[in-house]
Amino acid sequence: MRELTVDLGDRSYPIYIGSGLMAKAGDTFLKHGLPIKSPILLVTDSAVVDLHADKLEASLAHAGYRVTTAVVPSGEASKSLEMLDELIGAALEAGLDRKSTVVALGGGVVGDLAGFVAASFMRGVRFVQVPTTVLAHDSSVGGKVAVNHRLAKNIIGAFHQPEFVLYDLDTLATLPIREVRAGLSEVIKHGLIWKAEFVEWCDDNADRLLALDPDALGYALYEGCLVKSIVVSRDERENDLRAILNLGHTIGHALEAVAGYGELVHGEAIAIGMVGSARLAAQFGYSPDIASETERIFRKFGLPVRFPSELSTDDIMDAMMHDKKFAEGSMTFVVPTAIGSVEIRKDVPSTWVREIVDGLRDC
Amino acid sequence: MRELTVDLGDRSYPIYIGSGLMAKAGDTFLKHGLPIKSPILLVTDSAVVDLHADKLEASLAHAGYRVTTAVVPSGEASKSLEMLDELIGAALEAGLDRKSTVVALGGGVVGDLAGFVAASFMRGVRFVQVPTTVLAHDSSVGGKVAVNHRLAKNIIGAFHQPEFVLYDLDTLATLPIREVRAGLSEVIKHGLIWKAEFVEWCDDNADRLLALDPDALGYALYEGCLVKSIVVSRDERENDLRAILNLGHTIGHALEAVAGYGELVHGEAIAIGMVGSARLAAQFGYSPDIASETERIFRKFGLPVRFPSELSTDDIMDAMMHDKKFAEGSMTFVVPTAIGSVEIRKDVPSTWVREIVDGLRDC
Ligand SMILES: NC(=O)c1ccc[n+]([C@@H]2O[C@H](COP(=O)([O-])OP(=O)(O)OC[C@H]3O[C@@H](n4cnc5c(N)ncnc54)[C@H](O)[C@@H]3O)[C@@H](O)[C@H]2O)c1
Ligand SMILES: NC(=O)c1ccc[n+]([C@@H]2O[C@H](COP(=O)([O-])OP(=O)(O)OC[C@H]3O[C@@H](n4cnc5c(N)ncnc54)[C@H](O)[C@@H]3O)[C@@H](O)[C@H]2O)c1
Ligand SMILES: [Zn+2]
Ligand SMILES: [Zn+2]
Repeated sequence: MRELTVDLGDRSYPIYIGSGLMAKAGDTFLKHGLPIKSPILLVTDSAVVDLHADKLEASLAHAGYRVTTAVVPSGEASKSLEMLDELIGAALEAGLDRKSTVVALGGGVVGDLAGFVAASFMRGVRFVQVPTTVLAHDSSVGGKVAVNHRLAKNIIGAFHQPEFVLYDLDTLATLPIREVRAGLSEVIKHGLIWKAEFVEWCDDNADRLLALDPDALGYALYEGCLVKSIVVSRDERENDLRAILNLGHTIGHALEAVAGYGELVHGEAIAIGMVGSARLAAQFGYSPDIASETERIFRKFGLPVRFPSELSTDDIMDAMMHDKKFAEGSMTFVVPTAIGSVEIRKDVPSTWVREIVDGLRDC
Repeated sequence: MRELTVDLGDRSYPIYIGSGLMAKAGDTFLKHGLPIKSPILLVTDSAVVDLHADKLEASLAHAGYRVTTAVVPSGEASKSLEMLDELIGAALEAGLDRKSTVVALGGGVVGDLAGFVAASFMRGVRFVQVPTTVLAHDSSVGGKVAVNHRLAKNIIGAFHQPEFVLYDLDTLATLPIREVRAGLSEVIKHGLIWKAEFVEWCDDNADRLLALDPDALGYALYEGCLVKSIVVSRDERENDLRAILNLGHTIGHALEAVAGYGELVHGEAIAIGMVGSARLAAQFGYSPDIASETERIFRKFGLPVRFPSELSTDDIMDAMMHDKKFAEGSMTFVVPTAIGSVEIRKDVPSTWVREIVDGLRDC
C-alpha cells in the first residue's frame, strides 16, 4: 500500500492507494475515529453499486457501522441540486447526525456530489472518498466539491476536505477502457505541469498502465495525487498557482461543450487541449518538440489528439470566450515551457488560439 | 452610529448599527475594499423591495457598483433549493465572478438564503448583510446560512461570515408591529441567557422599543448582537456553549411545527418556550420568580406566553422528540438559573416537560 498526505494544515488528510483496501475499510474508519454510533450515508451510482458496494458495506458493517446506501444514476447529470435534495432526504431518513460520515463510492461525479452533501448537510459533516475511476485521483485531492447549474458546471459548491481517501485499485478492473485512458490523460497532465521524469515514466510504462498492472497503476496514481497535492497545498483556494492544473482545460472545456457532453469524455477533450497548449508554446518561442512529444505520448495511450471534423472553429472560440469572459483580443492560457513545466500567460492573442484550434481538427 | 466587532480571528467582521446607514452604503462597500469591477447581486424579498431597495441600489450605483437585484417571494418558503437554483442563475446572468459580492437586504429569510448563495456560488464569494427586521439581529451574527429541506429546517447550509453588517434602523419603521415584537423576543432572550442588567433595561424601555425609538432600538440591537457575538466567538461551530442560544427553542420549535408555521411566528413561539424553560428552572430548585419575571416581561412586550388551546400536548411532545431524538425518558434543555444566566441540563425528565407544556396551554 502507498500512502501520501495532502498537506493542508489542520485539514490535512491521507490518501491510501493499494489493492484490497476496501475489505479493510471498516478498520480504517475506526482508526480515523469515525464514530460507530452515528449512521453513515454511502453514496454511489447505478453502475458502481452492483460491482463494488457489497464489499464496502460488508466491511463497514463488520466494524460495527450502520450504513445506508443511496444510489444515484450514473453520469454527469447527477451532479444537480435535485440529487442534492434527494440525498439530504436520504441522510435525514437514515438518521444521520452531526457526527455522521458521508462516503462517496464512485468516480468524480459521485465524489463531487456526495462531497457537497457532506459539506452542506447540517452545515458540514465528515466525508470519506472511495474513488473507483482513474480520473477520480484528481477529484480526490483538493477538496473541491460541487454540483452543476443549468448555466454552468461546478458552479454551486464548497471546499470540503475528506477525512481520508481510500483508493482501492481492485475497483478499477471493472472500469471501461475508455474511462481508463481518459483518466490517464489527467495523470499525464500532472506530469506535464510539474515533473518531466514522471512523464517519461508514463511513456515507458504505457502498456502496463493500460493493462491495469496494479503496481504501475498504484505508482502512477500516487504520483498524480502527489503533484496535485503539492499544488493544492500551496494554494488551497485557487488564488494563483492552482490555475496550472488547468493545462489543456480551456480548449478542452470548449470542445466538451461544443461536441455535446458525452461525445468527447473529459480526459479526451483535455488531451486535445494539451496538444493545443503545447503548440501555443511554440508560438511563444519554446521548442516545437514539446508539442510533438505531447502528441506522441497521448497517441501511445490511445487518446485522441484531434477533434471531430464536424465541430466549427467559431463555435469552439465562442465557447471559450463565453466560458472565461476574456478581454478583447487577449486570452489567458497555461502554456508549457518544456515537458514538465508550465507558465500562465495572460497575453495570448486570440488569433493564435484560433489558428491552433483550426489545426487540431481531424481531417 | 454604533459599531461592534464579531470576533472570529481572520473571519472577524463589524456590525454597524444606526440611522441613515443605507444612504452611505456605497462608501462602506468601498471602505471595505469590495471591488467595483465585479458585479453585485442584491437579494431581497417581495415585501422589502418596494420599501427599501431603491435607496441601497442608488447608494451602491453612486459609488460605482453595478448592481443586479433579485427578488424572492416574502416568507420562509423561499429558503429552498429551488430558490438557490434561481439565484445562482441570476448571479450567472448578472456576470458575477469570484470577486463579486452577494448582498442580503431583508429579514432572516433573505439573510439565510442569500448567505447560502454567497457560500456556494463558485465555492464562496463575499457576502454583506443589510438586515431589515429586528429578528435579523440574530441571524446577522454567527455566519450560519442555510435553506430548508422538505423534512427539516435549516438542514442544508454552511458557515459563511459576512464582510460586514449594515443595520439601518430606518428600515425597521415599515416592519409590521407583530414582527417587531417577535424580534424583540429574541433580543430579550440574549439578555436572559447572559446579562441581567440588559433584561432590566429592556423592561424599563419597553415602550420606547415598541415605538421604535431609534436610540433605544439601536442600543437594544447592539446589546443583542453583542451577547450573540460573545457566545459565537467562543464557539463558532456550535460544539458546546453556542447551545445556550437555544433557550426556549426546544418547546418553541415544537409549537411552531404543531401550530403550523405562520400561526405562531418564531419569536412568539420561543417566548412561550422561554416561559416553559423558566418553569423547568423551578423544578430544578431555582427561584420560581424566574418564571414569573420572564412571563411578566414578555407580556409587557405584547408577546404570547401561552399557546392556542387547540394544540395537543401529545403532538407537541412528539414534535420535540422527533426534532431532537431524545434518549428515552430524559431530555436536554437550556434552563435559567437566574435572570441573565442559564445552564444546559441533559437530565430533564420528559414527565416534567409534559406537565409544563400542559400548563402553557391558553384556557
Ligand atoms: N473535484 C475536483 O477537483 C474534480 C477534478 C476533476 C474532475 N472532477 C469531476 O469528476 C467528474 C468526472 O469524473 P469521472 O470520470 O470519474 O466520472 P464518473 O464518476 O461519471 O465515472 C465515469 C463512468 O464510469 C462509471 N464507473 C465509475 N467507476 C466504475 C468502475 N469501477 N467500474 C465500472 N464503471 C465505473 C461511472 O458510473 C460513469 O459512468 C466530473 O464531474 C468532473 O467535474 C472533479
Ligand atoms: N442564521 C441564523 O443564525 C438565524 C438566526 C435566527 C433566525 N434565522 C432565520 O431567520 C428567519 C426569520 O427571520 P425574520 O423574522 O427576519 O423573517 P423574514 O425574513 O421572513 O421577515 C419577516 C417578514 O417581514 C417582512 N419584512 C422584512 N423586513 C421588512 C421591513 N423592513 N418592512 C416591512 N416588512 C419587512 C418579510 O417580507 C417577511 O414577511 C427564519 O428563517 C430563521 O430560520 C436565522
Ligand atoms: Zn480535468
Ligand atoms: Zn430563534
